[in-house]
Amino acid sequence: MSDAFSLDPRLEGDSVPLAELALCTVRVMKDARFPWVLMVPRKAGLAEIIDLDAAERAVLIEEIAAVSSALRTVTGCDKLNVGALGNVVRQLHVHVVARFEGDAAWDGPVWGSGAAVAYEPGEREKLAEALLSELRVAGVVSA
Amino acid sequence: MSDAFSLDPRLEGDSVPLAELALCTVRVMKDARFPWVLMVPRKAGLAEIIDLDAAERAVLIEEIAAVSSALRTVTGCDKLNVGALGNVVRQLHVHVVARFEGDAAWDGPVWGSGAAVAYEPGEREKLAEALLSELRVAGVVSA
Repeated sequence: MSDAFSLDPRLEGDSVPLAELALCTVRVMKDARFPWVLMVPRKAGLAEIIDLDAAERAVLIEEIAAVSSALRTVTGCDKLNVGALGNVVRQLHVHVVARFEGDAAWDGPVWGSGAAVAYEPGEREKLAEALLSELRVAGVVSA
Repeated sequence: MSDAFSLDPRLEGDSVPLAELALCTVRVMKDARFPWVLMVPRKAGLAEIIDLDAAERAVLIEEIAAVSSALRTVTGCDKLNVGALGNVVRQLHVHVVARFEGDAAWDGPVWGSGAAVAYEPGEREKLAEALLSELRVAGVVSA
């Protein structure tokens, strides 16, 4: 299929798989500075939220809500940051980031804020397992 | 009413009114560097998208879509940036920004990127009138 969905190589390289929801493939960013989840609708040729139809957007916002709730529950963060930018990688992707007062980019945005820091062994897996558990409780994980 | 909605003074100071949609009050940022719209749900006590209920979130995403479409049609931008951060001002607000390759913050985010530049006389009003016209065509302006 010429227009099958495939994840942008840069997004793929910067993150690891977490879960498959009805619309989005959900990944954890390889950056220990911020608990940071990446959501990518599995549909080819998308760049903007408005490239989705209304029914898909309704699913997207509920998947964003589920991921946001999981991230806040797991991390106890002070603030959530949700963003769809795509200035560098054009494939539509939504960031959901747990922010803490005084974190490495506070109170600015995480995007474009210095270099990623690797997780200590096992730490990213621990975050991922806790998030996945919350998403399963929320009933949104389809695979 | 102790919990009536009132716009955060900083958001109010940084922007001017554009339109009232079913859920959000919509404003144009006073920054000529970027065609930039601010959307604030008119409900007291909100900080996160997940502080809205599911029905309100469904309205929010469609209002974001309407504003996004209007902004792209009017500006012919290369990319839309949509973000709900709130690290500085906690009242829930969503930014929709028209981005151009080579603009003052490209390819980074607009948030935290230098000081606002005032519009030339009449330019902001021209943008606002064009956006309002598009939102009226889309049938989302309630007042």
